[in-house]
Amino acid sequence: MYKDLNTSLRTLMTPGPVEAEPRVLRAMCTPILGQFDPEFTAIMNETMAMIRAVFQTENHWAFPIDGTSRAGIEAVLGSIIEPGDKVLVPIYGRFGQLLTEIAERYGANVSNIETVWGQVFSPQTVIEEIKKAKPKIVAMVHGETSTGCMQPLREIGEACRELNILFVVDAVATIGGTAVKVDEWKIDAAIGGTQKCLSVPAGMAPITFNSRVEALLLERKKIERGLAEPNQCQDNQPRIIRSNYFDLSQLMDYWSPARLNHHTEATSMLYALREGLRIVLEEGLEQRFNRHALHEQALMQGLLAMGLKIYGNQEYKLPVVTSVLIPEGIDGEAVRTMLLGDFGIEIASSFGPLKGKIWRIGTMGYSCRKKNILHVLGALESVLIRHGAQINIGRAVQAALDIYDHHKRN
Amino acid sequence: MYKDLNTSLRTLMTPGPVEAEPRVLRAMCTPILGQFDPEFTAIMNETMAMIRAVFQTENHWAFPIDGTSRAGIEAVLGSIIEPGDKVLVPIYGRFGQLLTEIAERYGANVSNIETVWGQVFSPQTVIEEIKKAKPKIVAMVHGETSTGCMQPLREIGEACRELNILFVVDAVATIGGTAVKVDEWKIDAAIGGTQKCLSVPAGMAPITFNSRVEALLLERKKIERGLAEPNQCQDNQPRIIRSNYFDLSQLMDYWSPARLNHHTEATSMLYALREGLRIVLEEGLEQRFNRHALHEQALMQGLLAMGLKIYGNQEYKLPVVTSVLIPEGIDGEAVRTMLLGDFGIEIASSFGPLKGKIWRIGTMGYSCRKKNILHVLGALESVLIRHGAQINIGRAVQAALDIYDHHKRN
Repeated sequence: MYKDLNTSLRTLMTPGPVEAEPRVLRAMCTPILGQFDPEFTAIMNETMAMIRAVFQTENHWAFPIDGTSRAGIEAVLGSIIEPGDKVLVPIYGRFGQLLTEIAERYGANVSNIETVWGQVFSPQTVIEEIKKAKPKIVAMVHGETSTGCMQPLREIGEACRELNILFVVDAVATIGGTAVKVDEWKIDAAIGGTQKCLSVPAGMAPITFNSRVEALLLERKKIERGLAEPNQCQDNQPRIIRSNYFDLSQLMDYWSPARLNHHTEATSMLYALREGLRIVLEEGLEQRFNRHALHEQALMQGLLAMGLKIYGNQEYKLPVVTSVLIPEGIDGEAVRTMLLGDFGIEIASSFGPLKGKIWRIGTMGYSCRKKNILHVLGALESVLIRHGAQINIGRAVQAALDIYDHHKRN
Repeated sequence: MYKDLNTSLRTLMTPGPVEAEPRVLRAMCTPILGQFDPEFTAIMNETMAMIRAVFQTENHWAFPIDGTSRAGIEAVLGSIIEPGDKVLVPIYGRFGQLLTEIAERYGANVSNIETVWGQVFSPQTVIEEIKKAKPKIVAMVHGETSTGCMQPLREIGEACRELNILFVVDAVATIGGTAVKVDEWKIDAAIGGTQKCLSVPAGMAPITFNSRVEALLLERKKIERGLAEPNQCQDNQPRIIRSNYFDLSQLMDYWSPARLNHHTEATSMLYALREGLRIVLEEGLEQRFNRHALHEQALMQGLLAMGLKIYGNQEYKLPVVTSVLIPEGIDGEAVRTMLLGDFGIEIASSFGPLKGKIWRIGTMGYSCRKKNILHVLGALESVLIRHGAQINIGRAVQAALDIYDHHKRN
């Protein structure tokens, strides 16, 4: 009655999900191990070490949350926010809205500053607001996929540390594609995504946090009913973390030698994440970031040569997402539909004020390769011609090839 | 630096995670589709239909939560519980404790009745308590893997419906292994697990709920910041669901033609779940339940022939988990360690008052097959002899073979 799964092979040039690494897909075929099998706990420990490496941190705590990226964000914010806590979220796109939404749901008293979409904040503006608002937590997005901009974080992190404020960073879009220097930038907790620059399927969110966050979590800790020894009963923990599934203090016990039962770790997804991280570390962080930058350049030069305009402040461009203004008079959704239907290529639209105004093209992870860049440029040109757009014909792919030739010579 | 994933092939006879179906593992190798690709949304819709079928329900709402089983429980309880709500949780093992824990964290005023572990409740006892406590919600575990008992639910469901109380059932351990009749038993919301009788890796939790639950969710609905149209702003939704990730009212928009962006659906896990459900439906629910019962019988008769004792009230035995009393003087953990180390077989210990007292042997999904039953009985006998246990030698496997022979003749 239901047929065999039989999907088309797509070229995924959105800001996620992107094409998974073939080695990652194969790793998922590995048969299941029990969750407390020493072979499996060894894989858990290896994965922790690899997460530390990609976040460039010495933090002990680094493990995945078993859920998609926003599960990681909710685990971090929900475990550190107590009702009434002051949280500052500077917003420069949709995912700042999401940080605000999650923080508010956990009872935070959230204040925002906003800048126009397509821009980022000068660190000084944020720091001034921090000094004024005196929040317990500052939460920011590193790479805003909704606009294609990337916020410099180092000075904000330093200011937070100096003022003893927790600095939480959503690095979902950037981890594995461009530098996320958790320790150097004095980030207290960071959340990554799998289905973007790590090229692992959606369904896990690697996070890391330091001893400042750990200390707070330990104050709020309560061992689960049915697991606590009689002398550990803490039914009156007044500062209890609201979510059980996202309770980082319980997850620390699960991801430590105590191996206190919480959920059943998502076996196949952990195999996938381990393989994805292994590929990142084999390639090398610097080489990987350079590869992402190279293909981004080829794509940008191709789009510009076609006569299209890049959206947003390019000084702070997110190197793994390129936002393109949809030419006047062109139906952006019709173009996307034809790209998918005829060329098997997916690019993205955007949200809120940018809906119908820009396309977003990802250059992330395994999707970020020469074959795909040339394919998307050629196809977009053909589709735009078909839609009667006034563009320069025959130049886009050449401009990209020029970038690759230049790179090869240097 | 990190080696290729290279795991031992285990025989998993725990109450989960169990061996994944080979077809499910292969389905996960399928390349990624974009989350709004029509091919992918068709897979989402098919999966909804298959979830309905295994829950034996006509409910429209049936979809997976992207997290492990307790994520499904938290999504349901967290979306319907408002602070101060009265919730009754009858406890007959560890997972009743978990329902209590989660409900309390979401602000419920939880009352419990408890029965000794190894027993279930007479429906009348629960119904009397319901009439006394007058809760908004009754939450119960269908199959308690911690003890190996299964609670009859029909009469409790009927009483709840009559009294206009919501009846929430944790069917994590039973779905796909024994009947879970959501509509017939008047269950308002049910949660299943993947890594048990469905033989899909951990990481998703199929749920279903009816229009009574839907009506409540719609009252609490708030569209996410950054997605709401200006005329939809509901910043003052006073009854807002506390979790964003687990907000079923938002997930309804994601799993409906509106396809309002929430998380990025866990692509490969959805492929896995679809294939796992397809296998269940191809086998046929009745045939599948009969298969589980047959292998359970073979295992039980083997254990009894060995001279071991089954724990708990066998009239209400969970057909997919068999709890065995650890013989006097035997170190249960040493036996488990030798089973894993020498025979590659994993069986489980238990929690709380049963820690060190029983082993739990699962007969779930793909793990539930003749080869595995005979292997575990033979291995357990050998290990117990090695540990000096007084058991009947040479009888266990024969007793199991007798069951299979008898079945073949009939």
